[in-house]
Amino acid sequence: MIAMEPFRSRKASIPILDQVRDYCARHGLIEYGDRILLAVSGGPDSTAMLHMLHGLRLEYDLGLGVAHVHHGLRGFDADKDLRFVKGMARELDLPFYATKVQVLSQRNRCESLEEAARRLRYQFLLNTLQEMDYTKIAAGHTLEDNIETILYRLATGTGPGGAVGIYPKSGLIIHPLLALSKDRILEYLRKNGIHYRVDQTNDDRGIPRNRIRHEILPLFFSINQRYREHFGHFSEVLRGENTLLDRLAREALSTVLECRNDTRYRLEYDRFMQLDTALRRRIAIIVHEYLANDNKQFGRHYLPFKVLDLIATERVQGNRIIYENSDVTVRKEYDWLVFEKRVVNARPEGYLYSVSNFDEPQQLSEIGRELVFDIQNNKGLFEKGNRDREKIYLNYDKITLPLIVRSRREGDRIALRHVGHKKLKDLFMDQKVEVGLRACVPVLECNNEVIGVFCSFYGKDNRVSENYMITDGTEHVLVGKLRDWKR
Amino acid sequence: MIAMEPFRSRKASIPILDQVRDYCARHGLIEYGDRILLAVSGGPDSTAMLHMLHGLRLEYDLGLGVAHVHHGLRGFDADKDLRFVKGMARELDLPFYATKVQVLSQRNRCESLEEAARRLRYQFLLNTLQEMDYTKIAAGHTLEDNIETILYRLATGTGPGGAVGIYPKSGLIIHPLLALSKDRILEYLRKNGIHYRVDQTNDDRGIPRNRIRHEILPLFFSINQRYREHFGHFSEVLRGENTLLDRLAREALSTVLECRNDTRYRLEYDRFMQLDTALRRRIAIIVHEYLANDNKQFGRHYLPFKVLDLIATERVQGNRIIYENSDVTVRKEYDWLVFEKRVVNARPEGYLYSVSNFDEPQQLSEIGRELVFDIQNNKGLFEKGNRDREKIYLNYDKITLPLIVRSRREGDRIALRHVGHKKLKDLFMDQKVEVGLRACVPVLECNNEVIGVFCSFYGKDNRVSENYMITDGTEHVLVGKLRDWKR
Repeated sequence: MIAMEPFRSRKASIPILDQVRDYCARHGLIEYGDRILLAVSGGPDSTAMLHMLHGLRLEYDLGLGVAHVHHGLRGFDADKDLRFVKGMARELDLPFYATKVQVLSQRNRCESLEEAARRLRYQFLLNTLQEMDYTKIAAGHTLEDNIETILYRLATGTGPGGAVGIYPKSGLIIHPLLALSKDRILEYLRKNGIHYRVDQTNDDRGIPRNRIRHEILPLFFSINQRYREHFGHFSEVLRGENTLLDRLAREALSTVLECRNDTRYRLEYDRFMQLDTALRRRIAIIVHEYLANDNKQFGRHYLPFKVLDLIATERVQGNRIIYENSDVTVRKEYDWLVFEKRVVNARPEGYLYSVSNFDEPQQLSEIGRELVFDIQNNKGLFEKGNRDREKIYLNYDKITLPLIVRSRREGDRIALRHVGHKKLKDLFMDQKVEVGLRACVPVLECNNEVIGVFCSFYGKDNRVSENYMITDGTEHVLVGKLRDWKR
Repeated sequence: MIAMEPFRSRKASIPILDQVRDYCARHGLIEYGDRILLAVSGGPDSTAMLHMLHGLRLEYDLGLGVAHVHHGLRGFDADKDLRFVKGMARELDLPFYATKVQVLSQRNRCESLEEAARRLRYQFLLNTLQEMDYTKIAAGHTLEDNIETILYRLATGTGPGGAVGIYPKSGLIIHPLLALSKDRILEYLRKNGIHYRVDQTNDDRGIPRNRIRHEILPLFFSINQRYREHFGHFSEVLRGENTLLDRLAREALSTVLECRNDTRYRLEYDRFMQLDTALRRRIAIIVHEYLANDNKQFGRHYLPFKVLDLIATERVQGNRIIYENSDVTVRKEYDWLVFEKRVVNARPEGYLYSVSNFDEPQQLSEIGRELVFDIQNNKGLFEKGNRDREKIYLNYDKITLPLIVRSRREGDRIALRHVGHKKLKDLFMDQKVEVGLRACVPVLECNNEVIGVFCSFYGKDNRVSENYMITDGTEHVLVGKLRDWKR
């Protein structure tokens, strides 16, 4: 018979430092030789973290530093915290970095006090990391912090990626204590005779997070004494699935993405609508995140559910604005789903340049392009078949300076051979040019007449007025080319 | 310019009946001509549902029936409930079905009172549906029920598929009110002057569900007044993702499944371990569900997190039992991951039959096979190349009756040409026969010697002792064949 001993995990009932070491290994939080900046408030969690990582420093050859942020909120108490943490750093012979911020006065519009404190804290930590050459920042979040985060997000509205809670590792920030409950941390501190500071504001029930901690969590405990463990495991499983779904959504996005730039994503609508609903919702969130003006480091910016639902589940007929907020517009337009960043001045209201010589490129800063001109002899070189679709070819003999390069105006028409006078508006509609792009397309005007349209701007053949087309009798040809202008 | 009116959902602030109609349409809950059996307790939710679906009956040409279960728990109060619901059914001119169960005495081991009540209730509903030819059962669960379900599962431990809450449609059961909050339902009842019964046991804080309802939910409300909506949307998004992940996991399972039957799944371990962790966890849950002896209709049976983790994330070297509970064993064995149902008597401890004549097939009931014998003249017909790999060929001239057909015993050996005496244990190990199968393989014994082994039982060539092999001098050949025995 082959040996069939049960295979058991080693995690049953192991010392707390082993548990932290295992957790760090499992999630790749610490590598040999890491230089870790510890965010220490002086409270029990961060104090425990400091001592625990100090205990692992030789084993991992860690370079440790202690950072403390005085938020300028709790007056004398906060001063004591600072002195306390500084003392610990000195005792353990570790470098100490501190700053004093003024959360109240440095708070942004729409930011809660906690959000502002968090933002300022991480700014200081990241700056210190860079200046002092640390590789990671460690924060002492615990299992309870994770549960509070999950419940707070559920209560206030969260997307698929929010209910996963805190990640063990997020960018440069690691959370080595994320699997430990407060009980175990306090027990560790007591057993090892380690002092810590108590933040009185933690008891303020007016703060939602404190209400979750002090009122909701004990109720969960009364329902199931192992609720923390269950939440922790749920969070871990969900994080794994979230990572997978995020990857699948990004892959699916690439299959429906027609074109994109920094301010605009254009998706093929029919193919998008054929994707699984769950992937459509995620794609909407991903694209919104790319375009929205938010600092992802310090906030969650999900699309509201009803918006997701409109985008992802209701088939829109015709052209419609599906959603807009201050950052992003989502439109169904022709066969596309268009996500567009709303940036002040990003879409020019209009532009106009007067070109009097063709030696220098004409920069069109509003659309980030430049127009390069060249005058060449026409020796039948510009037969249609030889023409470069990116260029525009005009009968130079007929042009009177200045040549006007401008955006379209209401009522613009161009005389097209075999077609007659055609409104640019109709031309754009025929060619399915998105509304947001129409004001960008460069139009050439001469003698109060539209003589050419750079349709290559949106991927189509350029148009030239029949009055300025090259004929056999044309001696000189003005060749114009639109190219990217690197500011 | 093309028309760009904002595209708005119609769901802003619509009458409650329209909201229910929309919800049913969105989730495909009601079809034209449905015959729906309504589970009505007499409480506000099911009473509201009864009146609402009654309001939609002409539009959808619904056939409605009212079912009520008296749980035999609340005595006089429950009698009044029954009379009340019966009265409503009569008033609305609908068929009425009732039963009285005894939850206390009909409760199963390990079942809570609520679980037993639920099981008995749905048994009655499903029976009535079948007998009376209904197409669906409607239950009056609300948004709050959904949130309670999610929180209760999170507190007591849930797998990926549990935190999604209640599905709008689950098998034959539909939940038309799942998007409505209690407030709106009470408002509807009040505005329409509809009476309902109040269940006093709903206030019993000893019941976890009631504690969530009366203590935790108000705290969520104090944190965010729209928490119900947020939870509802979260639940809907997560359900969509859960459905997608479940499909992906089943697809992935089919790529790693080596073989399976009703009691055993054998997966290729290396390919399994190459899958995404999230899919590995889900595959473990899916296979466990297939094999576990649970009634999925009435309970959740997830693998504990640590088990999932062992199966899905820790690479097991060698052969090991990874996990076993009363239903299922999970083993790493050779190159496979084996999930096996633990059924009493499914794996024989051993068997032994004595065969004295070869006219009748010998039934081996323990392994569900039968052995058919045939005696043939040897005219060189049984040259190696002509032999059927499913059959065993023995020198009949040397056999003394009775022939013993039995399972392997400790210490069994067989004399193999060019090899010598080989232990069957070693033979099975060489051929990577799973431990669970070894006791099944039929062994032939004669004159106190193992003369053949039916290795075709596990897909390999049968083995014959060199003392009983056919030689040129052999006159008669005993041909044995193992085939399925249909009991």
